Amino acid sequence: MRVSFEEMKAEIKRVMLKAGLSEEKAEICAQTHTETSRDGVYSHGLNRVPRFFRYCERGWVNPDGEPELIGQAGLMENYDGNLGPGITNAKFCSQRAVELAKKHGIGVVALRNTTHWMRGGTYTWDIANEGLIGIAWTNTESCMPAWGSKEPSLGNNPLCIGIPRDEGNVVLDMAMSLYSFGKLQVTRLAGEQLPYPGGYDKEGNVTTDPAAIEETGRIFPTGYWKGSGLAVVLDLLAAILSNGNCTAQIDKIGKGSCGSCSQIFIAINPYMFASKEEVDKILDDTISQIHSASPMTPGRPARYPGEGTLSTRATNDEEGIPVSEEVWNKVRSL
Amino acid sequence: MRVSFEEMKAEIKRVMLKAGLSEEKAEICAQTHTETSRDGVYSHGLNRVPRFFRYCERGWVNPDGEPELIGQAGLMENYDGNLGPGITNAKFCSQRAVELAKKHGIGVVALRNTTHWMRGGTYTWDIANEGLIGIAWTNTESCMPAWGSKEPSLGNNPLCIGIPRDEGNVVLDMAMSLYSFGKLQVTRLAGEQLPYPGGYDKEGNVTTDPAAIEETGRIFPTGYWKGSGLAVVLDLLAAILSNGNCTAQIDKIGKGSCGSCSQIFIAINPYMFASKEEVDKILDDTISQIHSASPMTPGRPARYPGEGTLSTRATNDEEGIPVSEEVWNKVRSL
Repeated sequence: MRVSFEEMKAEIKRVMLKAGLSEEKAEICAQTHTETSRDGVYSHGLNRVPRFFRYCERGWVNPDGEPELIGQAGLMENYDGNLGPGITNAKFCSQRAVELAKKHGIGVVALRNTTHWMRGGTYTWDIANEGLIGIAWTNTESCMPAWGSKEPSLGNNPLCIGIPRDEGNVVLDMAMSLYSFGKLQVTRLAGEQLPYPGGYDKEGNVTTDPAAIEETGRIFPTGYWKGSGLAVVLDLLAAILSNGNCTAQIDKIGKGSCGSCSQIFIAINPYMFASKEEVDKILDDTISQIHSASPMTPGRPARYPGEGTLSTRATNDEEGIPVSEEVWNKVRSL
Repeated sequence: MRVSFEEMKAEIKRVMLKAGLSEEKAEICAQTHTETSRDGVYSHGLNRVPRFFRYCERGWVNPDGEPELIGQAGLMENYDGNLGPGITNAKFCSQRAVELAKKHGIGVVALRNTTHWMRGGTYTWDIANEGLIGIAWTNTESCMPAWGSKEPSLGNNPLCIGIPRDEGNVVLDMAMSLYSFGKLQVTRLAGEQLPYPGGYDKEGNVTTDPAAIEETGRIFPTGYWKGSGLAVVLDLLAAILSNGNCTAQIDKIGKGSCGSCSQIFIAINPYMFASKEEVDKILDDTISQIHSASPMTPGRPARYPGEGTLSTRATNDEEGIPVSEEVWNKVRSL
């Protein structure tokens, strides 16, 4: 079934208010979760609302938590998120990065002690919509084995990069695991196999069977050793620059997914040394080269990062946002 | 066979001088190529010297090219590399990033119109050795198909991140293709298969056969769609921020591998908001969690990025640097 943007947003806002969020915070969270589902990232839109509600009930998220400035040095600021809602903390910090970048050319905000920011791409879409380059990442609790080991010791630490473009921003939003656990679940429920091997089964064999990977927790990092290494350094950078928790420390705190995590928000003026025309030409030449390469599937050219989102957004704006009836009823029952 | 550091360096320096580099540039390039082989990145150490020599002969590298300041805004500087040697240009710019970071907390240098920087990790090892976080990347000519297409349209755009640590820096040095073409060649010459599929053969099947991938050029991006997307945004950022060429534009110039490419060098003070003790604890907790996870191969714990390099460095410092006799004779004949 599909529901309209306004209907979904109203329902989520009601739940957010019931969870104890202020009118202002509930509005921001409802808008963001709904945009996330509308853009096709269903795992972190409506679907995630019941878990967020539980986290507020348990005190793992503090509905009243606000970002608090704890350090400042030129274009760089450090905030403590006070375990407030991940979305409102991250929205505040990405906006601060934008303000710093508008003043200094670059702005860097390091946020510690925050909670799950839901879709990471939200913040780099926001920054790109302000005409700036956005770079943001978070660490998480352990959910992926480091390459060479069999037990989770790394977060999947999503990295998001957005570049403003009149015809549609270029926005990359990638976690460090090849597939998300959400994707494993969806594939299993559909009775399907993964398109490419996604991890190990309990015999230690590489497999495309999502259930076998869910059972072992031995999910592949993106590019095996490479995503593993990138996850390590993103974790270290987020924790060091924010003076916050690294994944190993988050694991010990035990406040759920991303409880007490560390995040970085960077905004950069793309026109420091190049004119709008020069930047547009770089974007056009790159996208045109990608589009014109002979496609794997005839008639379906390769896409730039964010292109698929724009297409899903257009469809869901027109036809309504797809929801699982079970999830929709669950949210309505909260 | 193995040769000593000093013997290799002297031989490379002789070739660099013959290629037309100044005494100072030849010294820097010889030192860097030798360190690269010593650290186990054989493809971009001694092995790359004959190609560099040819590029100088053809005028694709200008032995006298120097970085020229063309833009400045606070902690950010823009240089034109004037097609000078990639190593001396990149060494200069990473050092400038260090100086800017020592003054402002962060330094960003965007370099355009440069040539192959050889091992990317060189510059983030350098920055980390100065006690700063280093982030650097380059774009390249097309050598990898965008995910969803069959023809190369993307560079493999190496990304390097270094974090200073007393017991050994954490340094990630990763290209956006899962395997380098150097790795395909080495595996083919050894008559072996790749440990994990690395691309497509001419029938369009996923394969572990290096020769089949060399034939099609259809090498996998790291993590399929993910490394493809990251390659796109790294290319765009490097070209936009330096007002230089993107991959699609490098392709049209035709001055060999990485001729007229764009690079970014960032240095950040890790102690902006955290003390040395706090940063060390983050590093220790992270590395200890990785080391203590149950290993895939008994007795061989997972490693942090850079750990393998330190181990190879120690071996090669003691036993001499392994070289292919054919390559060594070729360099000596130049």
